[in-house]
Amino acid sequence: MSEHEIIFRDDVTVELIKSSASDNDVVWAARVSTAGENSKDAVGEDASRDVGLINYLARERHGSPFEHTSMTFFISAPIFVFREFMRHRIASYNEESGRYRELSPVFYIPSKERKLVQIGKTGAYEFIDGTPEQYEISVKAIKESCLVAYENYQKMLDAGVAREVARVVLPVTLFSSMYVTMNARALMNFLSLRTAREGSHFPSYPQREIEMVAEKMEEHFAQLMPITYGAFQKSGRIAP
Amino acid sequence: MSEHEIIFRDDVTVELIKSSASDNDVVWAARVSTAGENSKDAVGEDASRDVGLINYLARERHGSPFEHTSMTFFISAPIFVFREFMRHRIASYNEESGRYRELSPVFYIPSKERKLVQIGKTGAYEFIDGTPEQYEISVKAIKESCLVAYENYQKMLDAGVAREVARVVLPVTLFSSMYVTMNARALMNFLSLRTAREGSHFPSYPQREIEMVAEKMEEHFAQLMPITYGAFQKSGRIAP
Amino acid sequence: MSEHEIIFRDDVTVELIKSSASDNDVVWAARVSTAGENSKDAVGEDASRDVGLINYLARERHGSPFEHTSMTFFISAPIFVFREFMRHRIASYNEESGRYRELSPVFYIPSKERKLVQIGKTGAYEFIDGTPEQYEISVKAIKESCLVAYENYQKMLDAGVAREVARVVLPVTLFSSMYVTMNARALMNFLSLRTAREGSHFPSYPQREIEMVAEKMEEHFAQLMPITYGAFQKSGRIAP
Amino acid sequence: MSEHEIIFRDDVTVELIKSSASDNDVVWAARVSTAGENSKDAVGEDASRDVGLINYLARERHGSPFEHTSMTFFISAPIFVFREFMRHRIASYNEESGRYRELSPVFYIPSKERKLVQIGKTGAYEFIDGTPEQYEISVKAIKESCLVAYENYQKMLDAGVAREVARVVLPVTLFSSMYVTMNARALMNFLSLRTAREGSHFPSYPQREIEMVAEKMEEHFAQLMPITYGAFQKSGRIAP
Repeated sequence: MSEHEIIFRDDVTVELIKSSASDNDVVWAARVSTAGENSKDAVGEDASRDVGLINYLARERHGSPFEHTSMTFFISAPIFVFREFMRHRIASYNEESGRYRELSPVFYIPSKERKLVQIGKTGAYEFIDGTPEQYEISVKAIKESCLVAYENYQKMLDAGVAREVARVVLPVTLFSSMYVTMNARALMNFLSLRTAREGSHFPSYPQREIEMVAEKMEEHFAQLMPITYGAFQKSGRIAP
Repeated sequence: MSEHEIIFRDDVTVELIKSSASDNDVVWAARVSTAGENSKDAVGEDASRDVGLINYLARERHGSPFEHTSMTFFISAPIFVFREFMRHRIASYNEESGRYRELSPVFYIPSKERKLVQIGKTGAYEFIDGTPEQYEISVKAIKESCLVAYENYQKMLDAGVAREVARVVLPVTLFSSMYVTMNARALMNFLSLRTAREGSHFPSYPQREIEMVAEKMEEHFAQLMPITYGAFQKSGRIAP
Repeated sequence: MSEHEIIFRDDVTVELIKSSASDNDVVWAARVSTAGENSKDAVGEDASRDVGLINYLARERHGSPFEHTSMTFFISAPIFVFREFMRHRIASYNEESGRYRELSPVFYIPSKERKLVQIGKTGAYEFIDGTPEQYEISVKAIKESCLVAYENYQKMLDAGVAREVARVVLPVTLFSSMYVTMNARALMNFLSLRTAREGSHFPSYPQREIEMVAEKMEEHFAQLMPITYGAFQKSGRIAP
Repeated sequence: MSEHEIIFRDDVTVELIKSSASDNDVVWAARVSTAGENSKDAVGEDASRDVGLINYLARERHGSPFEHTSMTFFISAPIFVFREFMRHRIASYNEESGRYRELSPVFYIPSKERKLVQIGKTGAYEFIDGTPEQYEISVKAIKESCLVAYENYQKMLDAGVAREVARVVLPVTLFSSMYVTMNARALMNFLSLRTAREGSHFPSYPQREIEMVAEKMEEHFAQLMPITYGAFQKSGRIAP
């Protein structure tokens, strides 16, 4: 049996590592089209009087001024979340490697609040609460699988088998960690697709776990760029 | 116990679905810089007399003329391979979804030829043969994990739990399938990083399983664009 | 005076050089998510019974299945059009080079139908007809500038000055030529931004000359992928 | 005659507007592969003891850790420089618009140091000094063209013709201004292609004027990320 302490988590980690992203960045970037060199006068200014401009850019889908920004997040989440995340190509990624290190036994398990049952048809699924029995079955099934998988992982490592081979048994609910860097335009696109929100112009049906990550990223974004965030909301959560 | 027939495979599938990619495409694209409209005369011509031009473009890293090409592959391979593959952002992907369908129990297991033991240090690993015991331990460990995981997957599905929740127990050695479309420049970049080959200008240390996919893609590429492929080889397998 | 025959054109050239793009491509690419390997059965099928699927993908903004397509156009248009065109980054370009060849004296001049006068304010301009005087003034001004510029270009070339230096005098109304390769998703994004059309969900205000290019590309697209094109129209000309 | 003061410049402007880019960023991004969550301990540390790691990453072409950085430049340069610049697609741009503002009469003219004469053949040009006569002819030709063009531009504007039409007469030597945001990996790729430098692994033959821009960007880069810059130099100025 494995001597490693197995951890089951039902949450995800999102930390803002660094950023160079403010509403003001959108303003000078947009102004260069009409003011040329004089747009530099706007660098460092308070953006609060430019709410109208930023709303206009978001509403009319002038997206490029939102790109002169950069946010880097550290994220810990299950592999099945990262699989969806990395389909977003306008971003930079570095992730923990199962080839270069022994992976720790941290696994995702749904919380009691996680809706377990899916109804409706492809493309317009809805999720509803599971019964206590369904929850219990799921937790038991996931725990057993993870324990067996991690035990077999350790057996192979103990036998001298390469990490990259041994890790193939690990389930997609295993936690991994990565840094991702995105600009505000790419982030708005990510949020529009990976959150389900009333009032969105285009409805999205994200898996709950990537939405948990997205929601935490959204909080940071709202704090760093409140006017841009407001414009995103007002324009139906469509990425400009 | 699951009534599904569990399949263990030690190979991968790569099929060329369609392509619009020939050596000639590189020629007219390159010629437009010096010949303008007259470059159209080269469209459809035999590229065999333009070997020198194509070699020059590859050697001097004029990459853009290689982009006016398109190859679509159908690939079946384990999830851990797709995880690495999709880090290549200059490509288009559509993959089988564990949210939208019940996944079949097809799992990757190393062949006897797969080198199981890793020596050397980070960044310059070498792989050597495992012992028969190591192979046996690995096969047993992987099979057991996969069986338990799939059984638990089925238990949750049988209990009415959503596919996207149930699938979290499945290991990264599960097969998935996808279409990927790339141009020749992006493909050469992929090959340069995902194959280990004598004579490469920059050595790469890919995991064997993604290399198995890359090798099959390389064969198709070599057949579709033999002169370009030759130029890639001659220039040390660096993507232009 | 230059011995070269100066040409003034009021139209643009768009030719489809090659393509690998059909409505069917969207179908199998989309099907892989629910059918996995079986999606290959759809390759080569008639897409006419999949109108609903394609409409759904466009409406709900599932964009990736539209990417497994490729269209290459040869375009001749003024430099100021190419300047706008090349801001579209999801595309491959090769253009005639003023460094590598002597540029021909072909210049764009507005036709009599080109609306010359701009009213309204930034972000919502409208264009109305110019007077015959305004047209005459414009034609005269453009022709004179082009003639003087080309004459000075030739003077420098005749004196042995490098092409890349001499060409700096040439105006942005000079014709250039290029190949551009795009997939259907990128092309729909281009069309949504570079055409002004009743019924567009998001209004765009393109310069007329790039719209002339876009309209010709749109015709090819509509012919190659009629069902996708219909879906694009129905969904308010938003790129999925 | 135009009442605007015509300005001829023989230099370019590059200002660093903001940045989030340090050698340390490369370190924690790289470390996540082997250290997972513990890589966060490296955030904010002095990178001077990680010279070996950064050199290794650059030499072996592990490019992704260099992407978690962001530099925004304000650049004023002639249109023919921007035409080349914007072919670099892994970057964000906003530029002054000839549709939205009246463009100022600032034009590029070569300095006396600019080598005017090109020898050798396509793909391996060399440039040598021009004679005083060649310089005089060039300056005269460029000035005359610019004056005539700007005069005609003003004539059309005075007659009420739209800016976007009137500007077509302006030459590519006209100055424009833009913001560009790039990460360090994209910037190294730009520098490798747009500077001619002894000791480069792959020789490049940039036009001198874009090289003037690149050189100024390179100075900022060397100051912000001195260890990364050193690694770039040591590895033959190839972008990792």
